[in-house]
Amino acid sequence: MNDAFIRDCWYAVAFSDEVGEGLLARTALDHDIVLFRQADGLPVALTDRCPHRLLPLSRGRRCGDHVQCGYHGLTFNGRGVCVKVPGQERIPPAAVVRAWPLAERYGLVFLWPGNPAAADPGLLPEIPKWDTPGWGKSVGPRTHFASNYLAILENLLDPAHTSFVHTRTIGNAAAADVAPQTEERGAEIVAWRWIEKADPVPLMQRFGRFAGRVDRWQEYHLTPPNFSMVDFGGVDAGGPRDEASRDAGFRVFSYAFLTPETATSTHYFWFQLRNFHPDDESVTAELVRLYGATFEEDREILELIQKIETEKGERPLVNIASDAGGARMKRAIEKRLGLRPAA
Amino acid sequence: MNDAFIRDCWYAVAFSDEVGEGLLARTALDHDIVLFRQADGLPVALTDRCPHRLLPLSRGRRCGDHVQCGYHGLTFNGRGVCVKVPGQERIPPAAVVRAWPLAERYGLVFLWPGNPAAADPGLLPEIPKWDTPGWGKSVGPRTHFASNYLAILENLLDPAHTSFVHTRTIGNAAAADVAPQTEERGAEIVAWRWIEKADPVPLMQRFGRFAGRVDRWQEYHLTPPNFSMVDFGGVDAGGPRDEASRDAGFRVFSYAFLTPETATSTHYFWFQLRNFHPDDESVTAELVRLYGATFEEDREILELIQKIETEKGERPLVNIASDAGGARMKRAIEKRLGLRPAA
Amino acid sequence: MNDAFIRDCWYAVAFSDEVGEGLLARTALDHDIVLFRQADGLPVALTDRCPHRLLPLSRGRRCGDHVQCGYHGLTFNGRGVCVKVPGQERIPPAAVVRAWPLAERYGLVFLWPGNPAAADPGLLPEIPKWDTPGWGKSVGPRTHFASNYLAILENLLDPAHTSFVHTRTIGNAAAADVAPQTEERGAEIVAWRWIEKADPVPLMQRFGRFAGRVDRWQEYHLTPPNFSMVDFGGVDAGGPRDEASRDAGFRVFSYAFLTPETATSTHYFWFQLRNFHPDDESVTAELVRLYGATFEEDREILELIQKIETEKGERPLVNIASDAGGARMKRAIEKRLGLRPAA
Repeated sequence: MNDAFIRDCWYAVAFSDEVGEGLLARTALDHDIVLFRQADGLPVALTDRCPHRLLPLSRGRRCGDHVQCGYHGLTFNGRGVCVKVPGQERIPPAAVVRAWPLAERYGLVFLWPGNPAAADPGLLPEIPKWDTPGWGKSVGPRTHFASNYLAILENLLDPAHTSFVHTRTIGNAAAADVAPQTEERGAEIVAWRWIEKADPVPLMQRFGRFAGRVDRWQEYHLTPPNFSMVDFGGVDAGGPRDEASRDAGFRVFSYAFLTPETATSTHYFWFQLRNFHPDDESVTAELVRLYGATFEEDREILELIQKIETEKGERPLVNIASDAGGARMKRAIEKRLGLRPAA
Repeated sequence: MNDAFIRDCWYAVAFSDEVGEGLLARTALDHDIVLFRQADGLPVALTDRCPHRLLPLSRGRRCGDHVQCGYHGLTFNGRGVCVKVPGQERIPPAAVVRAWPLAERYGLVFLWPGNPAAADPGLLPEIPKWDTPGWGKSVGPRTHFASNYLAILENLLDPAHTSFVHTRTIGNAAAADVAPQTEERGAEIVAWRWIEKADPVPLMQRFGRFAGRVDRWQEYHLTPPNFSMVDFGGVDAGGPRDEASRDAGFRVFSYAFLTPETATSTHYFWFQLRNFHPDDESVTAELVRLYGATFEEDREILELIQKIETEKGERPLVNIASDAGGARMKRAIEKRLGLRPAA
Repeated sequence: MNDAFIRDCWYAVAFSDEVGEGLLARTALDHDIVLFRQADGLPVALTDRCPHRLLPLSRGRRCGDHVQCGYHGLTFNGRGVCVKVPGQERIPPAAVVRAWPLAERYGLVFLWPGNPAAADPGLLPEIPKWDTPGWGKSVGPRTHFASNYLAILENLLDPAHTSFVHTRTIGNAAAADVAPQTEERGAEIVAWRWIEKADPVPLMQRFGRFAGRVDRWQEYHLTPPNFSMVDFGGVDAGGPRDEASRDAGFRVFSYAFLTPETATSTHYFWFQLRNFHPDDESVTAELVRLYGATFEEDREILELIQKIETEKGERPLVNIASDAGGARMKRAIEKRLGLRPAA
């Protein structure tokens, strides 16, 4: 299952501001791709390989809205069609590269690796608070994990590990023995737990306004195969827990878009929306630093595990209760890949 | 034969002072192992892999005499039994890691990779002069060869190469044409030669008390599959050669314990016992330096040969007289591995 | 076809001044070879592997005209015959290494990897102006491409790429749309084009004596499988183009000798003969710099393509008109390898 990808789906491949005049090389779902932006503002993604002698087109140069190969000057338009072969009139019919459907939203360029006819921008993920006043954004740098994306997805449905891996940022020991619950809500898998009458974690101590103990929640929402939202926050211990109270408490929505680069590596685009100090750039910077450090903690562990799986061929032997969300995620992906009966 | 190991045998895996409060990761016989020392002073060796998601336990932390995995907190005791899974009562029966028999002697921790019932400390190698007054010790740092251990064993039964590889330390040209003899003494294979009326080698010139030429000996004792003792020294040319005279001359016993790390790499633990300047730390340091340099000379050659064997698949084509000891060693190991009839 | 080499042929393996007292290790056509020069001035090439334990002989030392292995002292003469095994009288019959026929010319040592009986120095390539007064030489450093040699040969029959890859040195945009012609002249394949009424390229601007526009030529001569001569120059636009006029204009013969190191790497020996400032060392240095920069531009592209072919298994899909010379070259090599009927 690790080598198969769901293809009829939008995958984030670049930040919008990475795609411009220059030629950006990026690998996604095992395809080498070159990205650039046309004069009309639309981004373009082509297979990053001249069909003549295989030189990556990203090693060539822009000629207006076209790309010219750096070896013999074969020139391709934004639909991947060769429009010029220097020194001859005839264009060989096979001189074509694949052009990939793109969509742009949330400061990201999304690529559709599957059937182009199905590439509907209406299928892009929803982010309700994206434009809501009073919510601040913190956007992390592009992150790369030398790990299969499924292990990262599993991690993003697993509140339990925070008590051991992230004790310096978003976890603490109080939660270690609180088992998470999981359920499916439509296409979404949710794993959550409330940790009651607990000390605020470091992040809350720093930016929250709590006098004493808190009831805090971790809600891990995952839409297979690549979209994660972690709803994380706290209210005064014993207080109400409805949506409005949670919005009035301390709340961070942390979004992640995962894109397999290869079977053993993954691009990780992420940002947070928060309900505190929305316009304070120092808070933004601090959240980028803290979440970045958190993801680094995950990265170290997941890359080590990937290395063991790749080099030694070992596979996990034991599951525990907190794997329930991950198991639902894997079943959902196997169903979509046709590896498991839909019923 | 190179990929099979004799398993019912003690293998040195660490210096005693490497095993303490912390978690020491080490690979031996292709097994990844974590070592630590309990409060009662006994060392423990467990398979260095949490059975849940494969994270090495050495990346976790000590909790008293237990080890807690750094990913989800599964906790194992010194017998490898999981005693806690955070967030749930039930311990999955498969949550067990292998615990390896250990024994400790000569400042080394030895591991028994085979049948635990056969792990008898009485089978540890004997070092007669270990506690004898008047004999000084020089203990080298842990050494690592990117070479199969059999090629090192062969080298340790081969006095001939010292005339070409170690001319700066323990060899010189006088010996080049003196053929060694070999024989088996019980489990031990011995290759030896006397080089008569020769100039003292550099080591003897420096620390011996010879007026003129010497009769010097090299006796390479090897107990397959992993224990080597080289008896090396000199007496005045023409003088008596009995054990007492040799003890009264210039004598060094150089011990080596080899442990395959993988099929193509080996841990090398070594020390010397000497009968000169036993308490002089500068002599100790000098011997560590000289023997270390000697083993580096071997290491360079053996790693180059391993690289050629691994990358090009080439195999030696010719044997010479000085290979006789190595040939006996290989036959002995093949017999123990059942690759050759015992008769 | 990429893994097979034509063996009955001379291949340059070293500059003459690389082969002397010391032991030079070099790999050619997948064979590891050690080179040295005997007291009589003749170069010797032996397989760089002691048949005893595989240590490269180049790690040993010279003993007069013999090579002594650095592990056990086996000693080989210039014909590859073992003449001494220290410690024993008998020389094992298998203690022989292959001795390779060599020839020396043009400051290069050539090796014949095929049938020794066929190694005729009369088959060395001809360089007519080598000793002609009024022609200067510029000899580049030994160059190494991590690329199959066929891709380099193809590049050396391909004037078209200079307009895109070498715009800073020997190409410019004027030539982009001038298609080259190709033909076979005996064993030689020639691809050429005239670019008429063009601006002089940077090299001509610097060292030529042109008042205005030029007619310039590129003639790529290739003798498969390893010898290239590029005849490059210009005359005043509209002027005569006979040999004498070309010799009186601006002319550079650039020679290259390619030797596969492995299936995916190649040694590249090169020099130029020029008809301007023949004795000016600053011009020589400048040509070495310029041609070196040009070959670096090729190297970057060809190594990237090799990496894609090796790692991804991709193959070119499209040919264009300027590939005609390369196609003839590949057919000629396939014929000599018996992969294609000679008729």
